[in-house]
Amino acid sequence: MKEFKTTYPDENYTVHVGHGIFNETLQYYTSGYDDVLYIVDENVHAHFKHTVIKHIKAPVLTRSGEAAKTAEAFMQLVESLLERGIKRSSLVVVIGGGATGDAGGFAASVTLRGVDFIQVPTTLLAHDSAIGGKTAINSSHGKNLIGAFHRPRGVIYDLDFLTTLPEPEILSGFGEVYKHALLNSEKAVTVLMDRTAGGIKAEDLEDSIIEGIRTKMYYVSEDEFESGSRKFLNLGHTLGHAIEYEYKIPHGHAVMLGLYAMMFISNNETDSGLFDLEAHQRYFSNLGYPMEILETLDPVRMLKYMKHDKKNTSDDTVGFILMNNDFQPYFTEIGTGKMVKYIRAMKESL
Amino acid sequence: MKEFKTTYPDENYTVHVGHGIFNETLQYYTSGYDDVLYIVDENVHAHFKHTVIKHIKAPVLTRSGEAAKTAEAFMQLVESLLERGIKRSSLVVVIGGGATGDAGGFAASVTLRGVDFIQVPTTLLAHDSAIGGKTAINSSHGKNLIGAFHRPRGVIYDLDFLTTLPEPEILSGFGEVYKHALLNSEKAVTVLMDRTAGGIKAEDLEDSIIEGIRTKMYYVSEDEFESGSRKFLNLGHTLGHAIEYEYKIPHGHAVMLGLYAMMFISNNETDSGLFDLEAHQRYFSNLGYPMEILETLDPVRMLKYMKHDKKNTSDDTVGFILMNNDFQPYFTEIGTGKMVKYIRAMKESL
Repeated sequence: MKEFKTTYPDENYTVHVGHGIFNETLQYYTSGYDDVLYIVDENVHAHFKHTVIKHIKAPVLTRSGEAAKTAEAFMQLVESLLERGIKRSSLVVVIGGGATGDAGGFAASVTLRGVDFIQVPTTLLAHDSAIGGKTAINSSHGKNLIGAFHRPRGVIYDLDFLTTLPEPEILSGFGEVYKHALLNSEKAVTVLMDRTAGGIKAEDLEDSIIEGIRTKMYYVSEDEFESGSRKFLNLGHTLGHAIEYEYKIPHGHAVMLGLYAMMFISNNETDSGLFDLEAHQRYFSNLGYPMEILETLDPVRMLKYMKHDKKNTSDDTVGFILMNNDFQPYFTEIGTGKMVKYIRAMKESL
Repeated sequence: MKEFKTTYPDENYTVHVGHGIFNETLQYYTSGYDDVLYIVDENVHAHFKHTVIKHIKAPVLTRSGEAAKTAEAFMQLVESLLERGIKRSSLVVVIGGGATGDAGGFAASVTLRGVDFIQVPTTLLAHDSAIGGKTAINSSHGKNLIGAFHRPRGVIYDLDFLTTLPEPEILSGFGEVYKHALLNSEKAVTVLMDRTAGGIKAEDLEDSIIEGIRTKMYYVSEDEFESGSRKFLNLGHTLGHAIEYEYKIPHGHAVMLGLYAMMFISNNETDSGLFDLEAHQRYFSNLGYPMEILETLDPVRMLKYMKHDKKNTSDDTVGFILMNNDFQPYFTEIGTGKMVKYIRAMKESL
């Protein structure tokens, strides 16, 4: 088992990663609480209720995916915790994919004005969202616009949960793995592309996942509340969220298209050939990402969604993360007119 | 104008109290922001839209009273802020009674994972709830069970807003004024009872209000997250919230009945005559509090609500604030069976 610890001045937590670690590690946390409540993703419950989670009685089940992140589903989740008699001294254990983690963590954050919680991510995607204390639900105006910063007491990432993931889920999660490689180094990207040239298999990704967790931990420890470098973790996400919202495709698929757009705009902004766009287009298509969506984008609608991004500070620009010639991410404000032009130019280039 | 400042290690804020201070003080805060959004209580809007708040364009209106604190009203409030293009760098100004402050502050806390906000309490009751950074909405399981700790950037308490308050609103607000006097000293209680022997007039209360703010500031600065002495501010509230929920009476009315119950139980627990129960019963009745409700309490239903109180740590007891022979508040756990007996004994004594 690998362990990574945050480096805040206090209230640090550990991310545990390994195979078959769930029950023993959970026991370590729950033993300190009189009262433990479980929020479990319905898919995880269906797969594991007779095996690894069979000891969990009366969990609060969440619908899988973004359906867990509507206002109605969220309020129902909070009411279910209250119904079960949750106390400030209780521990909430959230077991599931990224959406369950986001909604479950937010529920723990606001119920009784905040109770302790543990994240148990069960998907490839959730290895990212479970770390860093960001929790959220969706608004009719965009994704993740309602939420809180609420640190978990611990994160248990048991890689055995990945074995039952359907292929689209793996593909979606790989978007964040790829993003972490971009934030890590050019070499990390090359290694990852080599490893996955013939397709993505979860078992081939373990080293990259662990590297990615290390990258994420670095940024969330350095800048918890996203006033500076943490924004870099949004690489690919500004347009990605807009695409996800408009086309209702999985988060990681949308992020991957957003990363392609980031490469296109970075090449233009830096006037360099930093990214081999054709090679990336081919690679993403071969893996199964719906690159054809990029050809259908409505720039004005995309802009409308992007303008709700939490990083924006002005009405006339969109905050965006790009990469420079030294393969370093940077934050910039792109004028709305210029952004429309970039989206149009990208469409024409495809 | 009087000013009180919190004494946290950082991110302190000031409570400004005075007559006619609203616009000048507000200007001091809003000048630091490009973008200001207003949440205004519909009653305040109706009274002051042509005068003191006439410069406020397109405010988000909230329904007055607890109707602002349902899950549906709350989500609508958050969506309205997003609809108006709120950014992380925006300031939200919340103008209204206690419920508007609770819901508006919570909305500021979760929209985009938290934006700055200013509390502008306009009622007697809200002089209490606007200070201390507690925000909340109600659950079907009880009051204030869903919320966050989110410090305002400032609190502007303009006593001129009190001039239009209807009598029941003054009576409700006086519950917290009385509670603060209890927490302050036996002498403060005597002075307050003398001042109000012939009825409650807002203009007679200013010194007591300012004393009360000082008391509240002391506790919220000492123990922001209610792990210790801040609990004392819940004096009268444990049973008070249960009564409020069951009988749908104003908050302060319920708190006053809760304070009477606190006196009854304190006298019994300390085996003393600390509180002259008959005199208090007469005083509260004369002021117009519905003391007859205490004779109709269903102890088991009250207990059910009290068990949802956020201070509880066990299923077999109810956390309760009492006062000892030195007129000091203390926290204790009362067994559920004993609590039922106390409520029955109090009913018989009336």
